[in-house]
Amino acid sequence: MTEFELIRRLIPTLPTSSIVEVGAGDDCAVLQSGNPNSEWLFKTDAVVENVHFTSETPPEKVGRKALARCLSDIAAMAGYPTVALVTLGLPEGFRSDWVDRCYEGINGLARQHGVAIAGGETTRSLAGIFISITLLGTLPNGRRLLRSKACVGDGIFVTGELGGSIQAKHLDFEPRLTEASWLADHYSIHALMDISDGLAGDLGQILLASNVGAELLATSIPISRVAKLRAREATGAKPALLAALTDGEDFELLFTVSSSQAVSLVDSWKQRFPLLKLSCVGRITALPGLRLRDANGTRTFQTHGFTHFA
Amino acid sequence: MTEFELIRRLIPTLPTSSIVEVGAGDDCAVLQSGNPNSEWLFKTDAVVENVHFTSETPPEKVGRKALARCLSDIAAMAGYPTVALVTLGLPEGFRSDWVDRCYEGINGLARQHGVAIAGGETTRSLAGIFISITLLGTLPNGRRLLRSKACVGDGIFVTGELGGSIQAKHLDFEPRLTEASWLADHYSIHALMDISDGLAGDLGQILLASNVGAELLATSIPISRVAKLRAREATGAKPALLAALTDGEDFELLFTVSSSQAVSLVDSWKQRFPLLKLSCVGRITALPGLRLRDANGTRTFQTHGFTHFA
Repeated sequence: MTEFELIRRLIPTLPTSSIVEVGAGDDCAVLQSGNPNSEWLFKTDAVVENVHFTSETPPEKVGRKALARCLSDIAAMAGYPTVALVTLGLPEGFRSDWVDRCYEGINGLARQHGVAIAGGETTRSLAGIFISITLLGTLPNGRRLLRSKACVGDGIFVTGELGGSIQAKHLDFEPRLTEASWLADHYSIHALMDISDGLAGDLGQILLASNVGAELLATSIPISRVAKLRAREATGAKPALLAALTDGEDFELLFTVSSSQAVSLVDSWKQRFPLLKLSCVGRITALPGLRLRDANGTRTFQTHGFTHFA
Repeated sequence: MTEFELIRRLIPTLPTSSIVEVGAGDDCAVLQSGNPNSEWLFKTDAVVENVHFTSETPPEKVGRKALARCLSDIAAMAGYPTVALVTLGLPEGFRSDWVDRCYEGINGLARQHGVAIAGGETTRSLAGIFISITLLGTLPNGRRLLRSKACVGDGIFVTGELGGSIQAKHLDFEPRLTEASWLADHYSIHALMDISDGLAGDLGQILLASNVGAELLATSIPISRVAKLRAREATGAKPALLAALTDGEDFELLFTVSSSQAVSLVDSWKQRFPLLKLSCVGRITALPGLRLRDANGTRTFQTHGFTHFA
């Protein structure tokens, strides 16, 4: 059973209540706050030794990554991060300087984004370290950039470059918080999420939730240098385009916007964020499924990216 | 390094902000909600296979326990639980019926307390299962039953019976939510917490935070039947009184109240909660440290209970 299948089966069983505006299944839950101007975003995520990092990874980067993943989910709702709790699972004989350095990474990134760390929990772990972080953020009242909001005809956009994150930026990526709120403030963004399990798989989530299909243009997909290099030089490596479509941990933004706003968006983006690439990679279609168009024509593409339990 | 030492060292390094009314170091964090009548409680906790449960434990009870521990922390602030997120770490080859049954336990207890499950995360774990739960609750504005509020002369009370939880109730305990809000509504409770690491260790937290001492009366400490039985029958088992003072996972309430309210409290408690024992086990003193008085006189008692990294 894949992670997606498991989650799809569990969601309908969960108890809900009137305080929950958006429950399980999107990047964050949305909760009524009691404040008329804003709602709460609520998100949890974990990193596990030998899955998301190794004993060789500098502890500062492990802590930074644990928080950055949650920040990326707040960005995926165009929200503002506020306060976090940290749960640390530590094996017997753990090194206290590892913990200190891990917290330096968490605290540094938290300060950079004005996030308070309001506490947490330490517990024993029998094998390897895990860090589970929960983040609360705020969302301007009524803002709903959900996976289910893509419309037929929308342009599909991604920030940055895709693929090969595990060889490069997965420990240092910048959560796209500023970019996401700018997008929400200036454009009618329909669907928005962050790419954590590969463009194809995550776009598949949008297609499924919005009940639409998509056509991607192969030559428009921004392939990272490291994915290209690896495809050329590493034996048995994925072709670069496949890496860009299916590698995990890109943590870039994926969104759809009415095609009438696409040209204006590309122009203003260049002025506002000159150092970060923005690519229109395709469009939303009424025909279901994901199709990839290249010089040889159009073929369907399976929408599963990286899955934790494959 | 013990868990307490680790936490004591980390807390001063954590970034904070004006939204955080009470940060790390109490049972829950307290956050401004934007609602003038209430604040948010924010708490995270985790259970780990072979630490808090085994592969023999029925999965429903594992899920129930994971949530019940968080509920007990909301009780320890006399708050009301509202909405939770669940992070599940699963090893390769996990059984999906185990996950279904675990969620039955979580969902059942959540429904019983009106708690919504607004989502969560699944991730791979390399060895054994872990479940990390984060819970938001509400607190009537200004209610502050903190560990730091004990006053010299206060009576020290505990609910239920203590010791031997791991042989008996650790999978089935009832979080004392109703009792805690009743106490806060009707009495001037000073300090309040739940007993998770043993009466002596947890009372030690109150003494440290409140800068006071305490004297416990050995004959007043409510020792559980299972702790007595085990002390009599199991070779090498702790003496029953020591078990009641130092065993983990009791999840009963520990609180202090002005001695002038003590008699009235004991009377009304019996009427309101006839099935749950309430015991006055000692008093708060100006003299620092924890002392235990029995027929042979008074001796000091080390205030460390169960520690995860001992």
